[in-house]
Amino acid sequence: MKEITRKHREKIKAQKAFVLWFTGLSGAGKTTLAIALEHSLHKMGKHTYILDGDKFRETLNKDLGFSLKDREENIRRIGTISLATVDAGLITLVTLISPFRSSRDSVRAMHAPKDFIEVYVNCSLEECEKRDVKGLYYKARQGIIKEFTGISSPYEPPINPEIVIDTAKLDLKSSVQTILKYLKANKYI
Amino acid sequence: MKEITRKHREKIKAQKAFVLWFTGLSGAGKTTLAIALEHSLHKMGKHTYILDGDKFRETLNKDLGFSLKDREENIRRIGTISLATVDAGLITLVTLISPFRSSRDSVRAMHAPKDFIEVYVNCSLEECEKRDVKGLYYKARQGIIKEFTGISSPYEPPINPEIVIDTAKLDLKSSVQTILKYLKANKYI
Repeated sequence: MKEITRKHREKIKAQKAFVLWFTGLSGAGKTTLAIALEHSLHKMGKHTYILDGDKFRETLNKDLGFSLKDREENIRRIGTISLATVDAGLITLVTLISPFRSSRDSVRAMHAPKDFIEVYVNCSLEECEKRDVKGLYYKARQGIIKEFTGISSPYEPPINPEIVIDTAKLDLKSSVQTILKYLKANKYI
Repeated sequence: MKEITRKHREKIKAQKAFVLWFTGLSGAGKTTLAIALEHSLHKMGKHTYILDGDKFRETLNKDLGFSLKDREENIRRIGTISLATVDAGLITLVTLISPFRSSRDSVRAMHAPKDFIEVYVNCSLEECEKRDVKGLYYKARQGIIKEFTGISSPYEPPINPEIVIDTAKLDLKSSVQTILKYLKANKYI
């Protein structure tokens, strides 16, 4: 008996599956943007799922810390899960700082060329630190949190991402519209 | 903005999400049964996904070996992914030897009580070894493969699984029917 494949699942859902990979500093607005976008996609009858880096830190990746090696492994694991959820036919939204270009490129390489859409949630360190929604930047500056991206651990911005959203300049509604426009123009939705 | 939740996703798909966890010896027929069941569920318009232990060995879990500790971690990781796919609204079929009772019980405990259905794919070691579809038992007996479940690594059968399928006695079609009957009787489908 042949397996039920991604094509069957996409057909049953009348949608194309792909991954939107939101990368950016802590506090840049990745999750807020993903949640708002998910609402819009849900209204269109699309079946979506958010793979939230913070949540996976409490389950799958609770054995990992924040060293460079552990961060790479963190990104690798969520990358492999995004492969599975895309194979399952889901529009997958990944919200993960994913600070290393090489790690993001490795995940891109796992996917079929058109399946991986890198969304750079661009927001200056100054702005993120000013917002400091979770109080993490303060703790990082105090040295209470070690290896914090942007302060004591590097962030490598994407060189050629499919989409750039500047959350310091663009409001949430316009940010969502920008992504929807890209998805429509490129026939993802 | 509130998140799109499992309830929203289940509603859009008009289905209840849950996990069927197929445990049993290598060669017992876990994957064959899951694929056949998936066909039936797909025909009913259900959105399913198989988390295949062997496939994850090549991606997510490629850093793991077959020691007791690594097997536990293998089961833990796939358990956390099944949490995510159920949260995504998918009927999730896990095919994994998952030899340890404690590890399976840990995964059960991660899930809401009714979400986890343990399917013991029961087939004697003698029968599995006679089939030896992948030639693995031969290699295990020769000592070419170390720590092989049933030969050189333990298998602990479930004590109180929701479903038992004896693949040496029941043909594939009847096995699928048995599971479907359980799912209907318990209002999963």
